[in-house]
Amino acid sequence: MKKFLNTPDSYVADSLAGLAAAHPLLTVVTGADAGGAGFVRRAAATRAGKVALVSGGGSGHEPLHAGFVGVGMLDAACPGEVFTSPVPGQMLAAAQAVDSGAGVVFVVKNYTGDVLNFQMAAELAVEDAGIAVETVLVDDDVAVQDSTWTAGRRGTGATLMVEKIAGALAERGAELGVVAEMGRRVNASARSFAVALTGCTTPASSKPGFLLPDDEMEVGVGIHGEPGRRRAKLASAREVAELALDAILAEPVLAGGAAGTGPVEVIAMVNGLGATPLSELYILFNEVSRLLSGRGVSVVRSLVGNYVTSLDMAGASFTLCRVDDEMLELWDAPVNTPALRWGL
Amino acid sequence: MKKFLNTPDSYVADSLAGLAAAHPLLTVVTGADAGGAGFVRRAAATRAGKVALVSGGGSGHEPLHAGFVGVGMLDAACPGEVFTSPVPGQMLAAAQAVDSGAGVVFVVKNYTGDVLNFQMAAELAVEDAGIAVETVLVDDDVAVQDSTWTAGRRGTGATLMVEKIAGALAERGAELGVVAEMGRRVNASARSFAVALTGCTTPASSKPGFLLPDDEMEVGVGIHGEPGRRRAKLASAREVAELALDAILAEPVLAGGAAGTGPVEVIAMVNGLGATPLSELYILFNEVSRLLSGRGVSVVRSLVGNYVTSLDMAGASFTLCRVDDEMLELWDAPVNTPALRWGL
Repeated sequence: MKKFLNTPDSYVADSLAGLAAAHPLLTVVTGADAGGAGFVRRAAATRAGKVALVSGGGSGHEPLHAGFVGVGMLDAACPGEVFTSPVPGQMLAAAQAVDSGAGVVFVVKNYTGDVLNFQMAAELAVEDAGIAVETVLVDDDVAVQDSTWTAGRRGTGATLMVEKIAGALAERGAELGVVAEMGRRVNASARSFAVALTGCTTPASSKPGFLLPDDEMEVGVGIHGEPGRRRAKLASAREVAELALDAILAEPVLAGGAAGTGPVEVIAMVNGLGATPLSELYILFNEVSRLLSGRGVSVVRSLVGNYVTSLDMAGASFTLCRVDDEMLELWDAPVNTPALRWGL
Repeated sequence: MKKFLNTPDSYVADSLAGLAAAHPLLTVVTGADAGGAGFVRRAAATRAGKVALVSGGGSGHEPLHAGFVGVGMLDAACPGEVFTSPVPGQMLAAAQAVDSGAGVVFVVKNYTGDVLNFQMAAELAVEDAGIAVETVLVDDDVAVQDSTWTAGRRGTGATLMVEKIAGALAERGAELGVVAEMGRRVNASARSFAVALTGCTTPASSKPGFLLPDDEMEVGVGIHGEPGRRRAKLASAREVAELALDAILAEPVLAGGAAGTGPVEVIAMVNGLGATPLSELYILFNEVSRLLSGRGVSVVRSLVGNYVTSLDMAGASFTLCRVDDEMLELWDAPVNTPALRWGL
C-alpha cells in the first residue's frame, strides 16, 4: 500500500479536516455534537423555511458526499469510515444541526447498512426531535440486481444529480414533499454502469480488494469493488462505452425515438473511479457522445471527471439522467460546493 | 498497460474530441487550419482589443492546458503528443486564430522543446503575421536545477496561476505588456515541489517510465517522471508535506514574518498527479494548512484536486503563490473553463 496518510485510523478525520481547511464555507463537526462521529455542514445556518438536504455514506468515494455540501446542493454530509456506513447518531446530529424547521431530506444510496441506519435516524429525528424527514433512495446502477451489500440495484452516480437538482429546488423554498419528490424523479430518470480496470486498496489494507489480470476488466463493477456482470477481455474505449450504454439504454426510461416516448434529452456523466487520467475519461466521453447521437439521444449537459470514486481504482462509470425543462433549469442553477461550482 | 483508449496513435486526438463534445464553449481546430496538428480555442471570437493568451505543451497533464481555455483564462491551447512539445506551426495557427489585433501572450512551461518551439512561433507571428507577441516563461519547480528536458527550473503548478491571474487581467482590457508583466510577476511569486509514489505509463508504452519499490518515493519528481532530489523511504503525509514546504519556503519570495518582508499571503495548491485519491490530497492539504499557520504564512485561497497531472502517476505536488491584493482580486474574478469555474 502506497498512500499519503498519517495512520489508517485517522484517514477519514484527517481528510475531513483538510476539506474544512480548504473550504471556509464548510465546517466539520466532531465529537459529542456529532453523535460520536463527525459530519460536514455549511458554515452558515440554514435559512428559515429552507428544506435541508443531508446525505452520507462510507468514505472512499470523494468528492461524494462532503464535496457536494454548499449553496445549491447539500446542507450536510455524514461520512462513515472507508466503505462503512455512517451511524444513526451522526445522521440525527446532522439533521438537528441543519433543520430550519422546514424539514430534512435524506439522500441515501441503496446499500443495506446505509438504508438501515438512515431509516433509524429518520425515526429518531421524527419521534424524538420532532423533525419532519423524507428519504430519497438512489438505486441507479443497472449492472446487477442484489450485490455484496445491496438488495436491489446499487446507488452510484445519480446521487450527485439528485443532490444537485433537488438541492436547487430546496434553495428556492420548495416544501419538503416537493423537494423529495423531485429527488425521486431524478433517481427514476437516471441509470449508471461502471467498468473497472483494477481493484482498489483501502487505507487499512495492504493489497487491493480484488485483482484483475493485466488483460481483463470487471464489467459492471460496484463502487466498493463488488462484482459486476462478468470479467471480460480488455476492450477499446469505443467497445467499453458501447457495452455501458447498451446496458443503460436498455432501460425503458431512456428509450426514445420511434420505440419510446419522444425525444430523449440527458445529462451525461463519464466519471473516473479514482486512478484513471482525465484524458482517458474524455476519450470515453467522445465515444458516448458519438454513440448517443446515433441513437437519437441528445446530450444537453455533461460532466467529465472524478465525482463518485472508489479510492484508487482505475475505471470509469457512465450515468445518463433524462431531464425535462424543469430538471435542466434546476441543474443549471447556481451552486457553490468544493466539487461542483458555477454561477457563484 | 491498462487504459481506456482506442489506439495509442489516436489518444490525444480522441481526448480532444471528447473535450470539445463535453464543452460546447470550446472548439478543436485540426488539420490544415491548425498548422498540421490541432489546437483548442474558445468557440467565440476574441473580443476586439482583448489581449489573447495562448499556452500549450505536451499532453498527459490534463486538465492542463486545454482544460483552462475559456472566459477569464486562456484563449487557446496547443497540445502536443503525450509528453512531447507542440510544434511552431500549431502555435502560430492558434495565435492567428485568436489574435484580435491586441496581441498574444504565450505562456510557456520551461522545458527545452516548448521554449524553442514557442520562440520560433513568436518569431513567425511577429515577422510573418504581424502579431505582437510577449512570452511568459514559467519555472516554479524548486526541486532541481536542470533536468532531463530542462535548463534551469522546470515549470509546473504555477502555470495555472499565471493563466488565471493574467487571463483575468486580459479579460478587463489590459494591454499586452501589462498582461505579460502580470504573468511574470505571478511566476516569480510561485514555487512548487512534487513527490511521486509511482511512475506513469504513456499510451504507447507497456510499462511505467520509472519504477519505485513499494516502500520508496521520489522526492522532487518532475511532471514527466524526471528524477527529483532523491529517493526516500515512504513517509507519513505530515512528513511529505513538511519536506515539500521546507523546499518551497526556503525561497526568498516566500520568506515572511520577522526574517522576511512582511506578512505572507498565499494561494496554496495541493495537486494530484493523476492516480492519487482526492481524500489523500485533502490529508496533505490539512498538513499544509497546519504547517503554514505555524510559520506565519496565511492561506487566503486554496485548490485541492487534479490540475497538473502526469497521466496515471500516484503522487502530489505543492504550489504556493504569494499574492498581493491585485493578484488576489484577479484570482477571484469570474472564470468559465472545464477545470476552473466560478462566478459564471
